[in-house]
Amino acid sequence: MATHIPPIRKQNPYLPFGDQKGTRFYGQDILSVKQFNRDDLEYIFGVAHEMAGMVRRIGTFDLLKGKILANLFYEPSTRTSASFTAAMERLGGSVIPINEVRYSSVSKGESLPDTIRTLEAYADVIVLRHPEVGSAAMAAKYARKPIINAGDGIGEHPTQALLDLFTIQEEMGHIDGLTITMLGDLRNGRTVHSLSRLLTLFDVCINYVSPDILRMPAEIIGEINDKNIPQKEFSDLETILPESDVLYVTRVQKERFATPEEYESVKGCYVITREIMQKAKEEMIVMHPLPRVGEIEMELDDDPRAAYFRQVEYGLYVRMALLASVLGKA
Amino acid sequence: MATHIPPIRKQNPYLPFGDQKGTRFYGQDILSVKQFNRDDLEYIFGVAHEMAGMVRRIGTFDLLKGKILANLFYEPSTRTSASFTAAMERLGGSVIPINEVRYSSVSKGESLPDTIRTLEAYADVIVLRHPEVGSAAMAAKYARKPIINAGDGIGEHPTQALLDLFTIQEEMGHIDGLTITMLGDLRNGRTVHSLSRLLTLFDVCINYVSPDILRMPAEIIGEINDKNIPQKEFSDLETILPESDVLYVTRVQKERFATPEEYESVKGCYVITREIMQKAKEEMIVMHPLPRVGEIEMELDDDPRAAYFRQVEYGLYVRMALLASVLGKA
Amino acid sequence: MATHIPPIRKQNPYLPFGDQKGTRFYGQDILSVKQFNRDDLEYIFGVAHEMAGMVRRIGTFDLLKGKILANLFYEPSTRTSASFTAAMERLGGSVIPINEVRYSSVSKGESLPDTIRTLEAYADVIVLRHPEVGSAAMAAKYARKPIINAGDGIGEHPTQALLDLFTIQEEMGHIDGLTITMLGDLRNGRTVHSLSRLLTLFDVCINYVSPDILRMPAEIIGEINDKNIPQKEFSDLETILPESDVLYVTRVQKERFATPEEYESVKGCYVITREIMQKAKEEMIVMHPLPRVGEIEMELDDDPRAAYFRQVEYGLYVRMALLASVLGKA
Repeated sequence: MATHIPPIRKQNPYLPFGDQKGTRFYGQDILSVKQFNRDDLEYIFGVAHEMAGMVRRIGTFDLLKGKILANLFYEPSTRTSASFTAAMERLGGSVIPINEVRYSSVSKGESLPDTIRTLEAYADVIVLRHPEVGSAAMAAKYARKPIINAGDGIGEHPTQALLDLFTIQEEMGHIDGLTITMLGDLRNGRTVHSLSRLLTLFDVCINYVSPDILRMPAEIIGEINDKNIPQKEFSDLETILPESDVLYVTRVQKERFATPEEYESVKGCYVITREIMQKAKEEMIVMHPLPRVGEIEMELDDDPRAAYFRQVEYGLYVRMALLASVLGKA
Repeated sequence: MATHIPPIRKQNPYLPFGDQKGTRFYGQDILSVKQFNRDDLEYIFGVAHEMAGMVRRIGTFDLLKGKILANLFYEPSTRTSASFTAAMERLGGSVIPINEVRYSSVSKGESLPDTIRTLEAYADVIVLRHPEVGSAAMAAKYARKPIINAGDGIGEHPTQALLDLFTIQEEMGHIDGLTITMLGDLRNGRTVHSLSRLLTLFDVCINYVSPDILRMPAEIIGEINDKNIPQKEFSDLETILPESDVLYVTRVQKERFATPEEYESVKGCYVITREIMQKAKEEMIVMHPLPRVGEIEMELDDDPRAAYFRQVEYGLYVRMALLASVLGKA
Repeated sequence: MATHIPPIRKQNPYLPFGDQKGTRFYGQDILSVKQFNRDDLEYIFGVAHEMAGMVRRIGTFDLLKGKILANLFYEPSTRTSASFTAAMERLGGSVIPINEVRYSSVSKGESLPDTIRTLEAYADVIVLRHPEVGSAAMAAKYARKPIINAGDGIGEHPTQALLDLFTIQEEMGHIDGLTITMLGDLRNGRTVHSLSRLLTLFDVCINYVSPDILRMPAEIIGEINDKNIPQKEFSDLETILPESDVLYVTRVQKERFATPEEYESVKGCYVITREIMQKAKEEMIVMHPLPRVGEIEMELDDDPRAAYFRQVEYGLYVRMALLASVLGKA
């Protein structure tokens, strides 16, 4: 780390003294939550915690000065794209923004491997968002530079899962021992699938609350079960809310239902209001991957338990940690 | 101001010695021309004048190094977007460009407040261009970081009005005592409305020259009148041109007229040619908010009175001044 | 060159001692391959070679710190746009990305000269990609700042031709004495036209291999002939491959043929496979302007003779050299 940055190692509860130089993910790809063990997570969260301290104290610093990120988005995602851009810029690095691939050489039929091999001639690391499952793994296969998966279709979005878990860690101080309740569309939500998988590395209880047709897929349930993590399914929130430490809300999309009537009959159960929150613990946090469209009333935003905007900020720190790590500067 | 920048205070006619540290707009939003009094304008123009000197001497400097601007454009505006980007970069800061909001989370239905609260987790200041009147004010209501309105529909575009006025100040050396003539579509031109309002803070005469159906709205006329600013309306330029110090030209769009014939019958009166300019003062300046589409002949571009491209450059300095001010670095 | 950069002059075979300060293209436009003589090319390649050394050793450096590039793309070109962005960022400069001109002031009918004169108020150099032949020259006519042509329709794309030639120079060590074979659609390929023209400055043999309807235009053949460069035309590769030092492959597009049958009958002859490469020299290089769509089998990518991805990297260095040169910092 550059000499002008004050040492904050002592403030960091995660990293044992002497591990500072460890660049565990140097040159590696970040493709899937499945690649991480608990040590890895503690390492990433440790670096992310440091990043938070640095940003809050000095805003931006030159850890990655001279490094270039190619931010390659085959489908638009303002939120994720802006987060990686900010992460790179807060580390003093530069960004090549590529948001219009659908119009350009790709639409002339160029293969993803060729695009990747072109961009790695310019950049030091590539963040890839692509609509097809497995695209990030394929990019990584051909690339000499690190690939960070920023979402590949209904596949993975590992940095989202990492920031979700880091939010819990930072907000609650620990993850072991917590009861995490997931609410909404658990069938189609890639976010909750990845988070569930990551949670199996900890000692937690998981609850699922969803309409019947949007239940957590049996495949995920099975995986969690294999890790001996206690999990329960519910069709309404009321029973389980009082004992939840984390409420993870996702969107219930009208289009998922067979008929508008079916949607209307359940939607009210999946909207968090100030009234519902009266039954929640005082130190519970409410999370949401955003964007929300009505699942959480705006009146809740002032409630200190509303963690979803802080969650956005934690995302910045996690992405800073990943960029610095794969570039060997963490 | 950072120590490596040579002091130019003495060259600055605006700022009394000792005021250098004043960061009048620190943490504030820039939403409307109505928020400024004459002191404010003199402060902004003083800082903008300093910026001009710095840029001309050293090009770029690190006053905002480490600061990040989220440049959030819900509708495209190459000119304004590029101007803010350049302003931030010439101050050593970074930019998160967000030009495709219509395709991304916003199109999933996310509310403007949520988008703003997301971006302020990444950036230090947000520039917002949005098609709806009042959107900048709404964004500012929810944001903890400063919002700069870069145009909200037919509402306000305060930085354009500020740069227009700064152009007059820099080109003429003063504003008091001038006769300013506005030409073209005065009914729909948000630019001339805002400029007129700002001009009421000075001791000026205003003339309006427009086709009958495109006259300055009664509401604006009334406002100007309340400030005891002399104003006159004309249907052709000839009478008033010789005594004008500033000629502010705007576009007359064909679509505004009931019939093509009606448009054809007037359009010639609103095109500035070299011949017409022979009747203008030698020290008059011609301004235009750009883009122009025929209202000013290209043959005029070499005339030293053609100030419209210099106006673009003054815009850079005004936006640099605003960014530095709201971030507490002016 | 800035003092903190270690001197690498001795490693540079191109630049005679003492020429280091020469900024041959300072303030000039880069519009056409026709503007260069052999001395110019050697100068550019000398600077590009230095850039390669710097990038490989330290990644990024501050030669153009404080300079701003307006990257103005009227039609999308991920590859070229990203290359110039990376070039500017690796030199420590900043970029104003303008990719959506079709939606903005331009679509309101603004003329190219006005757009250029606006952007030069913000930037120090403008890279222009535009669908119309002659647009770069027109922009240069009005601009006070240097214009770099990044492709104007079927006109010129001089930086592509320069990087092609630089690739040959760097890969083969010299250009004089080489046999260069061009393959594919030679009629419509702006790339091979420009490269052929540049090659006339050297002592080379050129071969053309193409379907009959896609032969090199008579105009180009004539120009090359006037320079006494030996050139031959072939309809298949086999005869000429064994004596080629450089094989420059371009795409054969189905749409160019009168009937699908006609296309099917020839396409196989223009696909480079591992088998075909057995007949090529061991030190031959295969080039391609990319994107490729099947003209070169992916199995060839591991062949050390496959130079097309290295060619992308050489493009970065050539564009760095051009940016530094026109800004007087080479």
